[in-house]
Amino acid sequence: MAKKIVTMGELLLRLTTPGHSRFTQARSFDAIYGGAEANVAVFLANMGMDSYFLTRLPENEIGQSAVNFLRSYGVKTDYIVRGGERLGIYFLEKGTSTRPSKVVYDRKHSSICDINAEKINFDEVFKDADWFHLSGITPALGEKCITLVEKATDYAKKKGIRISVDLNYRNKLWDYPDFEKVMVNIIKDVDVCFGWINSEEDKEYSVADFAKQGVELDNFKNIFSNMQKRFNIKYVVTTLRENYSATHNAMSALIYDGNELYQSKKYDFTIEDRVGAGDAFAAGLVYKLVNGANSRDALEFATASAVLKHTVEGDFNLCSEDEIMAVAGGNTSGSVQR
Amino acid sequence: MAKKIVTMGELLLRLTTPGHSRFTQARSFDAIYGGAEANVAVFLANMGMDSYFLTRLPENEIGQSAVNFLRSYGVKTDYIVRGGERLGIYFLEKGTSTRPSKVVYDRKHSSICDINAEKINFDEVFKDADWFHLSGITPALGEKCITLVEKATDYAKKKGIRISVDLNYRNKLWDYPDFEKVMVNIIKDVDVCFGWINSEEDKEYSVADFAKQGVELDNFKNIFSNMQKRFNIKYVVTTLRENYSATHNAMSALIYDGNELYQSKKYDFTIEDRVGAGDAFAAGLVYKLVNGANSRDALEFATASAVLKHTVEGDFNLCSEDEIMAVAGGNTSGSVQR
Amino acid sequence: MAKKIVTMGELLLRLTTPGHSRFTQARSFDAIYGGAEANVAVFLANMGMDSYFLTRLPENEIGQSAVNFLRSYGVKTDYIVRGGERLGIYFLEKGTSTRPSKVVYDRKHSSICDINAEKINFDEVFKDADWFHLSGITPALGEKCITLVEKATDYAKKKGIRISVDLNYRNKLWDYPDFEKVMVNIIKDVDVCFGWINSEEDKEYSVADFAKQGVELDNFKNIFSNMQKRFNIKYVVTTLRENYSATHNAMSALIYDGNELYQSKKYDFTIEDRVGAGDAFAAGLVYKLVNGANSRDALEFATASAVLKHTVEGDFNLCSEDEIMAVAGGNTSGSVQR
Amino acid sequence: MAKKIVTMGELLLRLTTPGHSRFTQARSFDAIYGGAEANVAVFLANMGMDSYFLTRLPENEIGQSAVNFLRSYGVKTDYIVRGGERLGIYFLEKGTSTRPSKVVYDRKHSSICDINAEKINFDEVFKDADWFHLSGITPALGEKCITLVEKATDYAKKKGIRISVDLNYRNKLWDYPDFEKVMVNIIKDVDVCFGWINSEEDKEYSVADFAKQGVELDNFKNIFSNMQKRFNIKYVVTTLRENYSATHNAMSALIYDGNELYQSKKYDFTIEDRVGAGDAFAAGLVYKLVNGANSRDALEFATASAVLKHTVEGDFNLCSEDEIMAVAGGNTSGSVQR
Amino acid sequence: MAKKIVTMGELLLRLTTPGHSRFTQARSFDAIYGGAEANVAVFLANMGMDSYFLTRLPENEIGQSAVNFLRSYGVKTDYIVRGGERLGIYFLEKGTSTRPSKVVYDRKHSSICDINAEKINFDEVFKDADWFHLSGITPALGEKCITLVEKATDYAKKKGIRISVDLNYRNKLWDYPDFEKVMVNIIKDVDVCFGWINSEEDKEYSVADFAKQGVELDNFKNIFSNMQKRFNIKYVVTTLRENYSATHNAMSALIYDGNELYQSKKYDFTIEDRVGAGDAFAAGLVYKLVNGANSRDALEFATASAVLKHTVEGDFNLCSEDEIMAVAGGNTSGSVQR
Amino acid sequence: MAKKIVTMGELLLRLTTPGHSRFTQARSFDAIYGGAEANVAVFLANMGMDSYFLTRLPENEIGQSAVNFLRSYGVKTDYIVRGGERLGIYFLEKGTSTRPSKVVYDRKHSSICDINAEKINFDEVFKDADWFHLSGITPALGEKCITLVEKATDYAKKKGIRISVDLNYRNKLWDYPDFEKVMVNIIKDVDVCFGWINSEEDKEYSVADFAKQGVELDNFKNIFSNMQKRFNIKYVVTTLRENYSATHNAMSALIYDGNELYQSKKYDFTIEDRVGAGDAFAAGLVYKLVNGANSRDALEFATASAVLKHTVEGDFNLCSEDEIMAVAGGNTSGSVQR
Repeated sequence: MAKKIVTMGELLLRLTTPGHSRFTQARSFDAIYGGAEANVAVFLANMGMDSYFLTRLPENEIGQSAVNFLRSYGVKTDYIVRGGERLGIYFLEKGTSTRPSKVVYDRKHSSICDINAEKINFDEVFKDADWFHLSGITPALGEKCITLVEKATDYAKKKGIRISVDLNYRNKLWDYPDFEKVMVNIIKDVDVCFGWINSEEDKEYSVADFAKQGVELDNFKNIFSNMQKRFNIKYVVTTLRENYSATHNAMSALIYDGNELYQSKKYDFTIEDRVGAGDAFAAGLVYKLVNGANSRDALEFATASAVLKHTVEGDFNLCSEDEIMAVAGGNTSGSVQR
Repeated sequence: MAKKIVTMGELLLRLTTPGHSRFTQARSFDAIYGGAEANVAVFLANMGMDSYFLTRLPENEIGQSAVNFLRSYGVKTDYIVRGGERLGIYFLEKGTSTRPSKVVYDRKHSSICDINAEKINFDEVFKDADWFHLSGITPALGEKCITLVEKATDYAKKKGIRISVDLNYRNKLWDYPDFEKVMVNIIKDVDVCFGWINSEEDKEYSVADFAKQGVELDNFKNIFSNMQKRFNIKYVVTTLRENYSATHNAMSALIYDGNELYQSKKYDFTIEDRVGAGDAFAAGLVYKLVNGANSRDALEFATASAVLKHTVEGDFNLCSEDEIMAVAGGNTSGSVQR
Repeated sequence: MAKKIVTMGELLLRLTTPGHSRFTQARSFDAIYGGAEANVAVFLANMGMDSYFLTRLPENEIGQSAVNFLRSYGVKTDYIVRGGERLGIYFLEKGTSTRPSKVVYDRKHSSICDINAEKINFDEVFKDADWFHLSGITPALGEKCITLVEKATDYAKKKGIRISVDLNYRNKLWDYPDFEKVMVNIIKDVDVCFGWINSEEDKEYSVADFAKQGVELDNFKNIFSNMQKRFNIKYVVTTLRENYSATHNAMSALIYDGNELYQSKKYDFTIEDRVGAGDAFAAGLVYKLVNGANSRDALEFATASAVLKHTVEGDFNLCSEDEIMAVAGGNTSGSVQR
Repeated sequence: MAKKIVTMGELLLRLTTPGHSRFTQARSFDAIYGGAEANVAVFLANMGMDSYFLTRLPENEIGQSAVNFLRSYGVKTDYIVRGGERLGIYFLEKGTSTRPSKVVYDRKHSSICDINAEKINFDEVFKDADWFHLSGITPALGEKCITLVEKATDYAKKKGIRISVDLNYRNKLWDYPDFEKVMVNIIKDVDVCFGWINSEEDKEYSVADFAKQGVELDNFKNIFSNMQKRFNIKYVVTTLRENYSATHNAMSALIYDGNELYQSKKYDFTIEDRVGAGDAFAAGLVYKLVNGANSRDALEFATASAVLKHTVEGDFNLCSEDEIMAVAGGNTSGSVQR
Repeated sequence: MAKKIVTMGELLLRLTTPGHSRFTQARSFDAIYGGAEANVAVFLANMGMDSYFLTRLPENEIGQSAVNFLRSYGVKTDYIVRGGERLGIYFLEKGTSTRPSKVVYDRKHSSICDINAEKINFDEVFKDADWFHLSGITPALGEKCITLVEKATDYAKKKGIRISVDLNYRNKLWDYPDFEKVMVNIIKDVDVCFGWINSEEDKEYSVADFAKQGVELDNFKNIFSNMQKRFNIKYVVTTLRENYSATHNAMSALIYDGNELYQSKKYDFTIEDRVGAGDAFAAGLVYKLVNGANSRDALEFATASAVLKHTVEGDFNLCSEDEIMAVAGGNTSGSVQR
Repeated sequence: MAKKIVTMGELLLRLTTPGHSRFTQARSFDAIYGGAEANVAVFLANMGMDSYFLTRLPENEIGQSAVNFLRSYGVKTDYIVRGGERLGIYFLEKGTSTRPSKVVYDRKHSSICDINAEKINFDEVFKDADWFHLSGITPALGEKCITLVEKATDYAKKKGIRISVDLNYRNKLWDYPDFEKVMVNIIKDVDVCFGWINSEEDKEYSVADFAKQGVELDNFKNIFSNMQKRFNIKYVVTTLRENYSATHNAMSALIYDGNELYQSKKYDFTIEDRVGAGDAFAAGLVYKLVNGANSRDALEFATASAVLKHTVEGDFNLCSEDEIMAVAGGNTSGSVQR
């Protein structure tokens, strides 16, 4: 039977300019709905999991369109609560070559910011759940969201549900000290932490979504080992990315299992849409771990998932397990599949 | 020399679903920038006026895109101030036949809501100005906007600049008593008031953007005459609209000059985009009055402008003076112009 | 608690030329997925029903896209079986004014044609079901589909589930005698029959999707009364359509309850997309009847649903209950909903 | 065996703004290739005729695209000569309701203006030809085009090929006296003249593409009878159009056979694209006459062809003979053709 | 005088998702018509050849659209027969970087499968023909297609018409032994065979559309020499492709003339659309050989043609002879041509 | 206070095929307005300069659309004169990989060709101007344009306004000797000359828009030094481009200040749209020099501007000063800007 996985976070409307056109050139925006945790939920549904997404959306047609978008990919939306002022928005302009992609956020005052955690029926949400995934973005959205995250993780930990947290520190959303203060409680005793907290250490290794390639693996081993001990985390994980240009990157990933630091294969690729690559990585790892894979196989799958995400327009990795396994297995030749 | 006209109000991003598709069907939105007063400013620039628009826009690319959009049509954007949180948005789904158009507002917390009227250099703004146009939407946006409107109208009145006010009461934005309390001060001693305030009267004639056709003209004459006396307004004006369906309407208009009530020709037409028709009407009237036309000619021009607006996609009436004059002159045959 | 409704039939890929362009002009096709019964299922899900759709789809990405499309609108796809050769297709060119719409079918050899009714777990499908809806198109698809329909209706009848059948006779799919031979067994003892079987009678009243306006109601009463008695049907229903042009029609509807023939209001409207109007009618009637409405209210709702469908691009009526009630209540003025 | 018909004239690039948007709103243009005579040629090819089009096009990819466009519809392009400066262009903005369509011409200096009639091998062009069609636009393009038209018509007359001339007077292209001086020679002894020359008569009946409905038929009979006698023309023909708006017209047509004036059925219709309706009329008439129909049947077919053209985007009437016959036969109900 | 070349095969509707979007994301498909042999026919027409394409298409508008598409590029469609059930379809999703392109076939039961070879007038088809080109796909479509191919090649061989066969083995269409049994008769005594049959040999060299770069040329020479002797083929030819990713490949080609194995220049390039590259290669070779080029020049031209095809959207190589010669001559710098 | 810069030249309508499609495939063209000098004017307005553009445009909606397009980006259009026959057009097909981009010009007989320099009020145009920029394209458009350029440069020189000239020799527009004869007078005593005149020297170094990388810098120093002395030019400048393919180039640039030859950083990049890169270079240099930067900083900025232009669709470099400074500062990693 398919595993039940609960993912929680904000769902946003993404408005992207056509092709690589700049904001001032756009006479239309492509519209999709996504967000760090929703991207994970879609991937898991796509892998056949019983994937539930928990958020709060306004009671209007824009909120309903967001629900429909997730449902289309098989995500279960039963736990979504409705109400509040608006759906958060982000505007995206996709860069190319020497010009970076650009995001303009318009996500303040969104419905989830006012969520009342008391009204969530966590008994029902976590009933028979196998895994709970969340990210460090949600508590950055304000007091009510911190309460939500704390209540949810407390509940899940008590019930013995496995948990993964993607730190996803965004300096535009909150300051590092606030971030650290909140997150240290959340990541305690979880199964997987994507990224690390390292304020005491050298700045180069402070928390980051994606570390740069070429850094010393020994340093990582040291930091991850400290994380692991300090917070009792089973796996500390990160991707390593090299940015050659807005449309040409390389990527590998690291996993530390409390014992060894393992580095995945490294891939070189061009980019159609890089938003959500980190989420595709997290989702790939969770999918494999919840289904019993060992950490190395899970990492290779997760890395291939992240790499393939770059080829798919939108926030989601819509590739199949077979497609990801093929890339993880070394076939990146791109021969036509007839 | 072209007249200098200052228009003040909010500028919004309008996101429209393609064709007549519903919100849940949209995978893209057509993006334009408009708003009741901006629509007036564009029309006046199009007529060759020295048309200045005053608003506050965020310091990001979306705000800049709004500036560029207005500039494109010749509006002078020198007095626009930048800052604040976000650009207000409204989502539009254009109806057809028995299905009405639908608007979802996402305009709260927009940059103009926090505008500091002290920082506007009204000396410069109104220097050599011939006319000032505003609407009842702006004071509905909060205390700071009420202050803005009061300061601006006071200044303009003191300088002897002619003023037009489009009441534009929107019950989603504020309650009628609040509306009345604020607006009675603003419309005092102005040249033109679009719509009327009539809380003491029979409900059918309480303020409305567009009155229904077929009502008794005597009633209007009575109401407008009261308005005229109570507030010392030169012209009280309204359009009369009949809604046969979302894509088929008829329209005429009324002007009261303190003496007589004059009704324009009535037009029957199909609809491409009805947003901004009232603004095209107001703009047409202001354009003719500021350039010395008599009230009847001005009304006929304004009505033809409103009617033609329904044929133009977007918020603006992009028709030329010749085109409007032709329709006002009775040519609605639509023969190809080669 | 929401009623569980099971709908069964074929799901097709609809490829429509852009705008009103002709087939030979098209360089792209708009792609949606629909079909007479699926259209009913989507409407019912949209109304908040527990709406299950049963069909067979190929095990490829085109089949999966069809699943996703239904899921997006909240239809439950758990009972869909996968396998077979291909997804049926129909090409559509939307006419306008004096030029009719045109359909080119490419639906032969589709997956449902080879369906093995033995493999359907009807116990599960009909568990706690309140209603079962099907149409006369499915048995027209071949022997295996006849078996499927017979087994399903037998099962449902035995379980006391209420049933509605839309006769939907298509002379391109089968001959009238074959149609009659199969359908007489299926419509026995059902709750609702859309259309009538009347081979013994005068040709003008032989079965039809939509009868012409202006025919004698007495004739209808006579035919429907015979139907009712011969097959023990609770309600015999039909729409009456007048075709003024490809984009201008009028419509009303009739219901016979074994006693009286009731005619709905008549609507005059223009057309965005007329495919699925009959399905919107059937769905509206089923929705109201399953929730306890009387036959007249149900008919008025169903007629308004059919009329509104003509304003929505695609096969589905995506209007809300409020929107349909407004039209049924007489508001077809199309004023903007802000 | 299919009749061979030669059509001669200018082929232009038509750049149309999307939907009904105005020129200043367009960020793209829909691109097709057409022109009064080419539109006739395409219709005739569509009807299965051996349809040859003669023109001159530049030796670049834009010229080649024009050739490909005609070939696509089965027109034979063997006699097209290449060379000269440029392809003529016209920009089109399609009006709606009270706003007329607008054409901006950019057709000067086009390749055909410099055509050298000496280099055309008329022996080959007219070998086994059954009909030759041309219009009054070509001689308006300058001296070389007058020579071309005179040589071609002289040749065709000498060979006994039947000829039709669409007068198509355009006052932007030349003055009426010049027009008359050139055209009187050309229309002498032809089979069909679309429009009439009437400088001596009352202004209302001076030459026009489309006469207004409601004029006295006796006046037409008089004028046409004079035409017929003065120039020895077999049939004098015209359409009668009523313009209610840019998107709503009515149309009928007249034919005078030297004896009687016959008026076709009158149609009321909405408009998708009215460019080329007159050409669809001419083409319909030529098609029927060259294949032996009597003048009344030909007129009814031609009128239905013109009416249906208004439903097709672009310059061409892409409807089939069956579709036109259905409309001519009275079926304008627009019921879906499955 | 231009050479007459006859090409025979299936013509399909290709439905491609927009950009690089996945099937489940597509709300529209770009529609073109192509197929291995039709792609060759279009190229040859583009080069100025008298290029005839022989196939069978359904008698509906989709079939007619396919005819129009070929005609547009100058292909002569006189020998196309009409009838049968449907036009074959293939759905295409274009990959990028590490994600391969994907094809979903829906080509069964297409009109050509039921073709009656007796009804083809081969006397007319091959009258004055200089070359006949076909591929191994056609006989894979069933018994009637095998008969068609056998009759056609027998006829052409008897008349001394030069023949080229592109083996194009597709394992989804038939098994290798069936393929070999049928093809050995067809390729006997032809001028050119693209690909090779090698069941007795080592698996790596069994038949393939495109061999991998880097294999031993000696092995090829051996295999081709055997082919040449066994079947009396003048030229055995293949392309060699290296797949770095879905959008980055390298390519060269080999020709064996019975004496020497010659390898073309090798090109490194990015990919817009790789469908039809092999057909562009075949077409380039046929074009040069039928016009008397030596095998090396022909190979270089063919390879440059294949390489350039990757830059053109759709199935066809729409580049001119000059453009191909420039690339074959070493100019791949891509400087703007003004 | 912002510097006033006057730019003069032709403004054209650019019609580009969608994506990388070929001319014969296009059913629409993307429409923008640009030209060598207008591109400079837009960049300077974008940088906050008081940027005036002087040209002549036809009095029709196409001309007006061109005005609106420039205004949108903040260019001041007050000095534009209206009249003449037509707006020049160029058709563009963007190449990719081994296939070059292609331009088809249709710019003859454009409005500027007939400009009457007497009617330009140069007193007003150059009042308080800080810089005047023009190119060698304008005098290539005919006698009246030569007069225009001579009068304008004479006036500017007399007034002590700094001048930059982009030689922009186009061999399709005029012969080299004519070019040289006209330009030698214009470039005398200017501040900046882009490109060089070198007819007496070795052919490889004759005038060119972009020199090839890898040439001997000593040769350049020699040529530029001669230029500098012969014409009394402050800075002689050029870009050096390497064309690897239509979508992959490298670029650096050279500036000679009368003393030293300085070479900028070299960039390697992929290409979205290369039209206007040279103009972005010129504009970047002018912007920095007019604001007092030293020549090396100006060159680095200009080169980064040119490189970034390749990432922007259309003729204009729409990047901000910060974005260009980042690239000039070495950050070409393309990391997402949130």
